[in-house]
Amino acid sequence: MKALEDKIIAEGEVYPGNILKVSSFLNHQLDVDFLMTMGAEINRLFSDVKIDKILTIEASGIAIAVAAAAHMHVPVVFAKKNKTTNILADVYASQVESYTHKEVYQVIVSKEHLNKGENILIVDDFLAIGNAISGLMDIVEQAGGNTQGIAIAIEKGFQGGGDKLREMGIRLESLAIVDSMTDNSVKFRQQ
Amino acid sequence: MKALEDKIIAEGEVYPGNILKVSSFLNHQLDVDFLMTMGAEINRLFSDVKIDKILTIEASGIAIAVAAAAHMHVPVVFAKKNKTTNILADVYASQVESYTHKEVYQVIVSKEHLNKGENILIVDDFLAIGNAISGLMDIVEQAGGNTQGIAIAIEKGFQGGGDKLREMGIRLESLAIVDSMTDNSVKFRQQ
Repeated sequence: MKALEDKIIAEGEVYPGNILKVSSFLNHQLDVDFLMTMGAEINRLFSDVKIDKILTIEASGIAIAVAAAAHMHVPVVFAKKNKTTNILADVYASQVESYTHKEVYQVIVSKEHLNKGENILIVDDFLAIGNAISGLMDIVEQAGGNTQGIAIAIEKGFQGGGDKLREMGIRLESLAIVDSMTDNSVKFRQQ
Repeated sequence: MKALEDKIIAEGEVYPGNILKVSSFLNHQLDVDFLMTMGAEINRLFSDVKIDKILTIEASGIAIAVAAAAHMHVPVVFAKKNKTTNILADVYASQVESYTHKEVYQVIVSKEHLNKGENILIVDDFLAIGNAISGLMDIVEQAGGNTQGIAIAIEKGFQGGGDKLREMGIRLESLAIVDSMTDNSVKFRQQ
């Protein structure tokens, strides 16, 4: 998605540790009009697939998932990173290791919000190693659902998670794939 | 908003400790088409006010804030509950005591995303005691912005936070105000 690549060039900042900061529009401040156009593009990319529900993970996945769902007219379920006292029912749970924060956490989804046989589109803002996505796929499998595809705003291609998923035969659509980045240059993969 | 009251009656569950569980549509699973109609209603309620930006708090405030922003065509900033390694710039911070989770946390917003003189609409899914809202108002004040109003999906009127804000002269619009709730009955305030 050319408009997203342009926005990353214009507003993104590269920091040590493979960090691409896009907090001006994607994960702290949200450019909602732009998010809605990204949502429309995700809808277009998966228009040939039957999707019953979008699954994402709190917190920064929620905005892009809502934007996609607004165009696809399906509900979103967001996995939580901490057990809250508000969820009394049983949960599906999976372990995730965070590359950015160097910590292990559990993603949980209440059993009542994922059903057997549902066709799930997983949506997230970033894909790097792919640990969070693997956790979400694990949860869909536990629920007896089908992961029909994965939609990502920005894939860090050089960290390999995306290509590993493609090799597994999973349909993955990333709106922008960063193949390399340095202080003064971000290079995108041709799609 | 009659449609929201009907949905709370149909899908909400009351639990001990003043917990109203609406995780089927508002804060775990998200009924995005319905959220968008709530966003349209927030836009209508504040159509006479100049709003530059919406401020909310992760995680469950993000969806309703995005829905409102999609109609108001303004950016959203979501306050974070934990310091992340991705934010390197200075932050505005405020202490918040969580009623639901019985814990104290810090809400933080990167200084680069709130500017002096900006007209802010604070949006959140729930208002009870009002501690999270007070933290967000404190942050707006620190930034030199103006809290022009507060929009809430569900206010728990019987917990008093909303009326305290109204007495302070703050413009608060709640799409539904629960005045009492028991196992088998939820009563709403006439608006």
